[in-house]
Amino acid sequence: MNLSFVLEKVQSLRSEDRPIPQLRDDHDVQVRVKFTEFCGSDVHYWNCGEIGHFKVQQPMVLGHESSGIVEQIGAKVTTLKVGDRVTMEPGEPCRRCDVCKARTYNLCPAMAFAATPPYDGTLAKYYFLPEDLCYKLPDSLSLEQGALVEPLSVAVHLVRQANVSPGASVVVFGAGPVGLLCCAVSKAIRGCEGDCRAGLEFARKFAATSSFLPGNVSVHDNAARLGVENELGNGADVAIDASGAEVSIKTGIHVLRPGGTYVQGGMGRDEVSFSITAVCTKQLNVKGGFRYATGDYKLAIELLATQKVKALDLVTDIVKFEDAQRAFQQGKDRNGIKTLIAGVED
Amino acid sequence: MNLSFVLEKVQSLRSEDRPIPQLRDDHDVQVRVKFTEFCGSDVHYWNCGEIGHFKVQQPMVLGHESSGIVEQIGAKVTTLKVGDRVTMEPGEPCRRCDVCKARTYNLCPAMAFAATPPYDGTLAKYYFLPEDLCYKLPDSLSLEQGALVEPLSVAVHLVRQANVSPGASVVVFGAGPVGLLCCAVSKAIRGCEGDCRAGLEFARKFAATSSFLPGNVSVHDNAARLGVENELGNGADVAIDASGAEVSIKTGIHVLRPGGTYVQGGMGRDEVSFSITAVCTKQLNVKGGFRYATGDYKLAIELLATQKVKALDLVTDIVKFEDAQRAFQQGKDRNGIKTLIAGVED
Amino acid sequence: MNLSFVLEKVQSLRSEDRPIPQLRDDHDVQVRVKFTEFCGSDVHYWNCGEIGHFKVQQPMVLGHESSGIVEQIGAKVTTLKVGDRVTMEPGEPCRRCDVCKARTYNLCPAMAFAATPPYDGTLAKYYFLPEDLCYKLPDSLSLEQGALVEPLSVAVHLVRQANVSPGASVVVFGAGPVGLLCCAVSKAIRGCEGDCRAGLEFARKFAATSSFLPGNVSVHDNAARLGVENELGNGADVAIDASGAEVSIKTGIHVLRPGGTYVQGGMGRDEVSFSITAVCTKQLNVKGGFRYATGDYKLAIELLATQKVKALDLVTDIVKFEDAQRAFQQGKDRNGIKTLIAGVED
Amino acid sequence: MNLSFVLEKVQSLRSEDRPIPQLRDDHDVQVRVKFTEFCGSDVHYWNCGEIGHFKVQQPMVLGHESSGIVEQIGAKVTTLKVGDRVTMEPGEPCRRCDVCKARTYNLCPAMAFAATPPYDGTLAKYYFLPEDLCYKLPDSLSLEQGALVEPLSVAVHLVRQANVSPGASVVVFGAGPVGLLCCAVSKAIRGCEGDCRAGLEFARKFAATSSFLPGNVSVHDNAARLGVENELGNGADVAIDASGAEVSIKTGIHVLRPGGTYVQGGMGRDEVSFSITAVCTKQLNVKGGFRYATGDYKLAIELLATQKVKALDLVTDIVKFEDAQRAFQQGKDRNGIKTLIAGVED
Repeated sequence: MNLSFVLEKVQSLRSEDRPIPQLRDDHDVQVRVKFTEFCGSDVHYWNCGEIGHFKVQQPMVLGHESSGIVEQIGAKVTTLKVGDRVTMEPGEPCRRCDVCKARTYNLCPAMAFAATPPYDGTLAKYYFLPEDLCYKLPDSLSLEQGALVEPLSVAVHLVRQANVSPGASVVVFGAGPVGLLCCAVSKAIRGCEGDCRAGLEFARKFAATSSFLPGNVSVHDNAARLGVENELGNGADVAIDASGAEVSIKTGIHVLRPGGTYVQGGMGRDEVSFSITAVCTKQLNVKGGFRYATGDYKLAIELLATQKVKALDLVTDIVKFEDAQRAFQQGKDRNGIKTLIAGVED
Repeated sequence: MNLSFVLEKVQSLRSEDRPIPQLRDDHDVQVRVKFTEFCGSDVHYWNCGEIGHFKVQQPMVLGHESSGIVEQIGAKVTTLKVGDRVTMEPGEPCRRCDVCKARTYNLCPAMAFAATPPYDGTLAKYYFLPEDLCYKLPDSLSLEQGALVEPLSVAVHLVRQANVSPGASVVVFGAGPVGLLCCAVSKAIRGCEGDCRAGLEFARKFAATSSFLPGNVSVHDNAARLGVENELGNGADVAIDASGAEVSIKTGIHVLRPGGTYVQGGMGRDEVSFSITAVCTKQLNVKGGFRYATGDYKLAIELLATQKVKALDLVTDIVKFEDAQRAFQQGKDRNGIKTLIAGVED
Repeated sequence: MNLSFVLEKVQSLRSEDRPIPQLRDDHDVQVRVKFTEFCGSDVHYWNCGEIGHFKVQQPMVLGHESSGIVEQIGAKVTTLKVGDRVTMEPGEPCRRCDVCKARTYNLCPAMAFAATPPYDGTLAKYYFLPEDLCYKLPDSLSLEQGALVEPLSVAVHLVRQANVSPGASVVVFGAGPVGLLCCAVSKAIRGCEGDCRAGLEFARKFAATSSFLPGNVSVHDNAARLGVENELGNGADVAIDASGAEVSIKTGIHVLRPGGTYVQGGMGRDEVSFSITAVCTKQLNVKGGFRYATGDYKLAIELLATQKVKALDLVTDIVKFEDAQRAFQQGKDRNGIKTLIAGVED
Repeated sequence: MNLSFVLEKVQSLRSEDRPIPQLRDDHDVQVRVKFTEFCGSDVHYWNCGEIGHFKVQQPMVLGHESSGIVEQIGAKVTTLKVGDRVTMEPGEPCRRCDVCKARTYNLCPAMAFAATPPYDGTLAKYYFLPEDLCYKLPDSLSLEQGALVEPLSVAVHLVRQANVSPGASVVVFGAGPVGLLCCAVSKAIRGCEGDCRAGLEFARKFAATSSFLPGNVSVHDNAARLGVENELGNGADVAIDASGAEVSIKTGIHVLRPGGTYVQGGMGRDEVSFSITAVCTKQLNVKGGFRYATGDYKLAIELLATQKVKALDLVTDIVKFEDAQRAFQQGKDRNGIKTLIAGVED
């Protein structure tokens, strides 16, 4: 059967043995899930039962950051075979609407995304997805690393939105996994200026060239303490926020040079007090980044394979599937950076 | 002598006869000013004595939207001759810094801009500027129209920042001169959806295809009343704000489709409540637009010459130089859209 | 049955009654074809049996520029209903490969394109295609105009590749339908400089602001005669070749200003003598344009509906389906610009 | 005095003691030249007396790849002081024309470029240039390395034209200094596929991941031997030609994937046989790259300072100023990769 880790309703989890589905069409692939991490969104659904207009209205399997091994392939699948080790891009767009055709399938209104209501997630014995969203791992990458491709792709997407070019100065806000990975990706491309709220020591060790804890002071004071106004001359080329915190957002806008680029990746309150006049007078480019799209998984895999980003350093623990609930609790309490949940054993 | 319209200090204006300067170098051109309009910034300096960190600390000639006739040219000037009718781009960048070399000379920190402290403006008998910022008017354009190239260039710059492409749906907020001109420029390129706070009837007649007055209701209600959610399907491609009002800014972000572009042109309060999460989840492009840069004057002149934009319709009155103070008062009271001040007579 | 106009083998055409296929899946739409034009590629397959590596190896229905009326829709079709008047985008990409996801589905190696071996074309009683490639015509457009959306989309795609911006100077080479439509599209966006080998008078009447017949002289002489070196100062911003002729290609490169953009749309010999050093020293952007992709059909429909492009003026004759062979012959002999073939009558 | 290395006329060189000029204006800087290399263009002027429409019509100092020490500064110079170690960007644009304002000052028709007739070059005791084209070397860089910033900036410019993004596959043609540096810059950003005609062993050691010698066979065979068709799937993302050879240009176009980018940097014959139809059907982006512009020197300096590019490995010899003629002869005979000429001693 297909043992699955299910969010039954708000703050109620259970393991459930479900029937194994059939391949849905000739492009489909059945994967035996091997490693999964929890993401903040899993915790949020558990805690609140909703994110924005997505509401958990029926039991839903959690998890969307996973790797595994191919167990069955559809008749038209040509690039994968049974036994292949893969990482999974866990959202299938409609492929037919204007946003899908405009290189932004991540914005598809009909997106079926794992562990986003009403779609089941990957934290089960088996998961099914189309061939093109299932990426074969190079021999040099472990299945543990394969599970980290999803959060790394989020960071890749944000850094790409930022057009981080060689030679650019980059400030990243937020010291959770995505912020840390944004630092590492920026550095792999060019080197970046560091950051942030928590885990400062770790951030510096992992990827940042320097780190900084914004205080409850003015953005001018924060920027001065961050050293941007001195070291970077007229300001930073790029600021990426992976925190969602108002103080970070404001500092981010403030530290940018005229013509600089700001990318919003973190999600906190829907509305914040925002320096709209600075956007105008400094003629800034402010962009959002949401999940990942064309090419992000491929680059994430390459950054891992070439060891330019050592994402495995973010993993502090690996637990068995039957201990997922405890791991989930740990994630919820932010005791660790990332905990891997191993797949269901036979 | 060089009769000039001077802001002596806050709320104190006077005409003053100043000596006529020499050409500053071989690229310089002396222009006999023929028509000038006031801009909101002139009024603001009169009223408050400062805009942002620019403070009026010594008497300053007002005015920066002007046309005139060439009276003297430097030794290296090749494209102009005495007697040419010209419109003037009233800000000289340093030409040497990184932002100047990056196609964004409008952001040059050493910019010497007319009627921005400490630089004198154009509302005098004579004004001096380098050849390349002095554009010969085509025969079909009057000197009155020449004075409108400056505000039209501001609109051209905003619409260019917005990447308004053929077929795009555009919503413009703000029914002052710049908002109206943004409508007209967007329409010249493609057609646009209309707008707003005041002069609604005029906006519709001038350039907008429809018009709308945002109310003190939710952005959802404003967007629904604006009809964007119905008519434009998933939302507008582009929103341009030329109002600076929080309700317009919020509605602008709300009406955009995923992947849409928002441009901030209006300046109101430095900080507003802003939907940062929508920027992230809709992966929007939010950009500022400030003054004008490479190519904007040329396109503005062409839009006037081909009659694609009829900017002269914005002018409600023409007054003599000696009546400038009254005209200024009118601008201040917003009784008219634009009042032209004729040049000093002999 | 499904009466079809079939290319049996080189230089052998016949009408054939074929069985009517089933809808292939829930997204499919069955269209009763109403108007079709021939394209140069149809003629080329008839004449030579191959274009590049595409070879006619079994009988193939010709035609890919068609409009029609919806007769049946799949279960998941939501935007069309039986009786809708539509224009058809006649190539279905795989939607799953990297080029499809990169906004360039026109380059998909698995593209199934009408009347490109081994795929049957649209010149039959019925044609089947997926909902998203079937565009409802606005009430103001006739089915005759609907058949012209395909060639107009080719022109839209070329002009978009050229980044023709407002104010740009454009030179188009080639006075066949695509060249004429490129002139018209460029002009709709901005105005263009004209053209070409044949039908000069017609070109000027249809869309070009001036026209020109390149001679067997040097590119310098051709450019001088074209007047580009005088009128446009340092050269044109954009050159689009829809001829494929070496003399046009060379003149196109020569007339461009430093930093200008050249787009190759016409296909003649595979290799030509080409000014590669000018590409380097003038730092040109040379781009190809192939068929059409995201958004091109929509803009083409809008340009017709707003009457900015009057493509129907290109049609010189309308013939019955049973006279298609004669019409084909006419097209082959280039006696007319475009001949419409009406759909099969009951 | 100002001892200078002068090309008197074709194939005639001599050292000449010239008077030391004055600073030309308040932005000017006088530099005591310390190291210079010859470039292919110096050799070409010596050999032929002309390149394109540039003709040596009076004696001209050679050299434009130099470093030195500041000896005098103009009154408005703020970023440099006497004694600073600098590298020099040896071409001053007019700063006033449209191409200068469009971020492409390298294309300025009024460019005054060192050792391009009629402008004297840098191979003298002293050279004068404006402050903003004089870049202070970081402490970690030697003056020898400083002289290599110029050719490295050419490579930086070409790679930037190519939009080499992280994860891109790059093929570079040409194993002279610029080709080798293009490999190194591409690799610093991402890693690249290798190259070519001569010095294959050295290329592999210096920067390429693999190397290849094109033969007098078809482009298909060359591409197959290059392995692109196998290893890179549908072809390379980017090809950069730094050779100017027809066989390389053709192979470059052939190895690209649909939608790929080709950059022409090498200059050989003005016209070559060129696959224009492939540009069309693969919808390629073909661009030229000429010298360097905004930001290229800064990035080149950073790539040296961070040791991502070890350009000094290209230098095989350092000779005294009085031996410049012999060194020139060596360059001419291509016995070494790069020879540095030391500055005039006291």
